[in-house]
Amino acid sequence: MFDTIEGRNPVLEALRAGRPINKIFLAKGGSERFAQDVVGLAKERGIPVQWVTRQKLDEESRTGNHQGVVALASPIEYVEIEDIIARAKEKNEDPFIVILDHLEDPHNLGAILRTADAVGVHGVIIPKRRGVSVNSSVAKTSAGAVEFVPVARVANLVQAIGKLKELGCWVVGTDAEAAEVFYTANLQGPLAIVVGSEGKGISRLVKENCDFTVKIPMAGRINSLNASVAASVILYEVYRQRIAQ
Amino acid sequence: MFDTIEGRNPVLEALRAGRPINKIFLAKGGSERFAQDVVGLAKERGIPVQWVTRQKLDEESRTGNHQGVVALASPIEYVEIEDIIARAKEKNEDPFIVILDHLEDPHNLGAILRTADAVGVHGVIIPKRRGVSVNSSVAKTSAGAVEFVPVARVANLVQAIGKLKELGCWVVGTDAEAAEVFYTANLQGPLAIVVGSEGKGISRLVKENCDFTVKIPMAGRINSLNASVAASVILYEVYRQRIAQ
Repeated sequence: MFDTIEGRNPVLEALRAGRPINKIFLAKGGSERFAQDVVGLAKERGIPVQWVTRQKLDEESRTGNHQGVVALASPIEYVEIEDIIARAKEKNEDPFIVILDHLEDPHNLGAILRTADAVGVHGVIIPKRRGVSVNSSVAKTSAGAVEFVPVARVANLVQAIGKLKELGCWVVGTDAEAAEVFYTANLQGPLAIVVGSEGKGISRLVKENCDFTVKIPMAGRINSLNASVAASVILYEVYRQRIAQ
Repeated sequence: MFDTIEGRNPVLEALRAGRPINKIFLAKGGSERFAQDVVGLAKERGIPVQWVTRQKLDEESRTGNHQGVVALASPIEYVEIEDIIARAKEKNEDPFIVILDHLEDPHNLGAILRTADAVGVHGVIIPKRRGVSVNSSVAKTSAGAVEFVPVARVANLVQAIGKLKELGCWVVGTDAEAAEVFYTANLQGPLAIVVGSEGKGISRLVKENCDFTVKIPMAGRINSLNASVAASVILYEVYRQRIAQ
């Protein structure tokens, strides 16, 4: 079984990142410049490119929005928590990790991976069951970030949090009921940020296992932000504090 | 011609905000507690509620995700720039405005309206032609924020920027090429933040008319954030600076 990588940027990013790709389908009569880029990169890596009709592409596409290109790739390889910690060590940085507590919307996961790449997150942890995993829609909305941000899938988030604490990380939950506002909290040092699901926020057990929680102030009439927005606002605050450090 | 308002939270928010609604369709056999809330609020305002089959709801739905409720409402009433400024004055606050330069994705507009409500933005300005306008999908993803954040549609963004400057606002563009990072820039005082479209960012003419531009640093491999994420990260920095003021 293959993953599909769909759309111009995602396919180019996957090629540049060296992701194992079995075959690329390109639309006849599409952009010549894009085709040149793809064919060039594919040739370097010995990946066959096949020119096909729009109809064939529509059949191969799982997102329904392929922009004239679909690549068949091996599924994303999930990593272990230890790999994420090792990645931070390699870069000589304090670990900076995101834990997603049963996120449901692939667009939110894709957008969070984009932000995670942008702020230097070393890896993202998601649960094995329930919640969205890294599929073609996620890859597409991540604009290629899925190639650069390692993702670990764990059977039990509370155990994962325990392990991160043992490894010296502060685990910080995001919660509307928190006493502290995110931009006055100290978010420096080894850190894992826990983000809740779209409807329900962080689950009780996960929250109880966080070292502390922070909230995003809401000065208006509605009571929650889009999940990828909430995560990203906090991730950029961590980035800001790390730069200022 | 009616707008539809679809989904539980959006319909409840529209009722609470007093938005003119002509009729509400509720699914037979749906959540009783939700139905009680809706029927109660609708009764107070003399809005007829009709119990219908799922099939009928599917027919009325434009988003394909109605959660058992669809309200038929008058289209959102757009406001004028002067109304937005007046709203700031009423609250005795410096104007805080968002200008969207031809955003295309309704989910992004919906998410930005949510954040705009949360940080106390007085109004959002969008162009009349090209770009997304406030439709049912936007209303749904805004989680009701569309009821609380006034939106102005203008024929010409550059003229709108000129008017805002005359009215004493600083107009700040967001641009990957900007010299200054958003969190070191002074974003206090009367302010309009310009956010570009998903693919292309801010158009050249609009950029030239900004007082200055700021960038969101990108430390990873990909070169752009989701548009609603980018807008929201900057809006919360403005909020932070206003609170600190």
